[in-house]
Amino acid sequence: MKVCVVGCGLIGGSLGLALRAQGATVVGQDRDRAAADRALELGVLDAIGDAAGAEIAVLAVPVRSIPACAQALTGLGAAAVVTDVGSTKAAVVRGGEAAFGGRFVGGHPVAGSERAGPDAADARLFAGRRVILTPTPRTEPAALARVAAMWRSVGAAIVEMDAERHDRVLAAVSHLPHAVAYALAGALGALGAESFRGLAGGGLADTTRIAATPAPMWVDVFLENRGPLLEALDAFAGELAALRGAIERGDGAAIAALIAEARAARARILG
Amino acid sequence: MKVCVVGCGLIGGSLGLALRAQGATVVGQDRDRAAADRALELGVLDAIGDAAGAEIAVLAVPVRSIPACAQALTGLGAAAVVTDVGSTKAAVVRGGEAAFGGRFVGGHPVAGSERAGPDAADARLFAGRRVILTPTPRTEPAALARVAAMWRSVGAAIVEMDAERHDRVLAAVSHLPHAVAYALAGALGALGAESFRGLAGGGLADTTRIAATPAPMWVDVFLENRGPLLEALDAFAGELAALRGAIERGDGAAIAALIAEARAARARILG
Repeated sequence: MKVCVVGCGLIGGSLGLALRAQGATVVGQDRDRAAADRALELGVLDAIGDAAGAEIAVLAVPVRSIPACAQALTGLGAAAVVTDVGSTKAAVVRGGEAAFGGRFVGGHPVAGSERAGPDAADARLFAGRRVILTPTPRTEPAALARVAAMWRSVGAAIVEMDAERHDRVLAAVSHLPHAVAYALAGALGALGAESFRGLAGGGLADTTRIAATPAPMWVDVFLENRGPLLEALDAFAGELAALRGAIERGDGAAIAALIAEARAARARILG
Repeated sequence: MKVCVVGCGLIGGSLGLALRAQGATVVGQDRDRAAADRALELGVLDAIGDAAGAEIAVLAVPVRSIPACAQALTGLGAAAVVTDVGSTKAAVVRGGEAAFGGRFVGGHPVAGSERAGPDAADARLFAGRRVILTPTPRTEPAALARVAAMWRSVGAAIVEMDAERHDRVLAAVSHLPHAVAYALAGALGALGAESFRGLAGGGLADTTRIAATPAPMWVDVFLENRGPLLEALDAFAGELAALRGAIERGDGAAIAALIAEARAARARILG
């Protein structure tokens, strides 16, 4: 199998390493030539090159760069399949189908880290994780099967859902936590970060770990998934206001009830 | 050295294990007799008993139980020192000094986990961590020195600050993140937890890990540190509103700036 990976960051780089470990040939490129060179050096790629001869092209760039990236794709064969790894899907799939018709399959590996760039690539990043694919009535079954097989070959399990549902679910389980983590780290800055150094326990480090992620990817995700994210933010603001109110009026029973509901919800999602 | 630990949960239990590993004799008690029995079985305690003969009594119970716990302390010698491990300090220190005068030293080990009870006890919990002590002009220097020596013997470093400053700092670096984590888990419940099962990445697990902590301790902390916590919650709400506004108006530059500030603040505190 020959795969072309466009974008050699954490996700594209990890996919390249993982596919090569399974015997696939991986060519790739990055608009940042230094990142492509580094990816080659790290063994993420067999070669820097275009999509000529590739059975699958994977667009692994921030979601709002996907349309330009798709347009710039050269060498793509008539039978080749195109997929992406973006954290939002509705607009990406519309754009992908406009460019590639039923040979485009929207994808999103639910895996990542706060690190970025080819040096963060990890061949085991997708092992045991889920990859959400968002086919439409227009998607060619063979294209879907080929993308699913690629992800299964690197240890991932496939979940299919429609793109709109994907975006609502991910707004809740991923985009909202990122927004909250950034706001929390920002609030600590406003409250006097310097004087807190060395005084935080592990709770703060964990709660804000994802706020260490650099901006470009998340600016795109927040803008691209604005509607579902605003809904999720408002649900969160409601919970926070309820907890604040209970604290302000000294209502221990209400605080205990909110904590119990929160623990139960967490256990239902992650337990 | 003989130490009496009142409360055999995560913190009291871990301190018992750690002190015994250093050769101290540890007697203890818990209003939940089963917890005390379990602590004895796990080697947290040499014996179940009161403070007779102890040089230090450590009140390791939820902060709003400390006054009753202090009143119920039996067997305490006239030269014995009393300290606590509560997450808030101003009210605790006032109560402790009312009961024990200059022999009371407020303390707070900045260490913990989302687990609770004697089975969560870990002899290494305090190694390399900080313990904040909050002496007042009334505190006897020998009492302060004795409590500091106890914590150093289990690997902790001592930081001294006044109780009011402690409560403002901890409202920001600990109580706020806990409140946010509970609100986030609660919001996910409201948004449809069941349908999210298996679809969350590591970010959600980390961001809400501290929301797995059972209620009693945190109800007490939120109520006891209401003033500083409400200030911290309002700073957070301001950051969140700024981020929400930027998302709503599609202002990528503003989102990028907020993310950059958040990352910088996090690095200043934790880096």
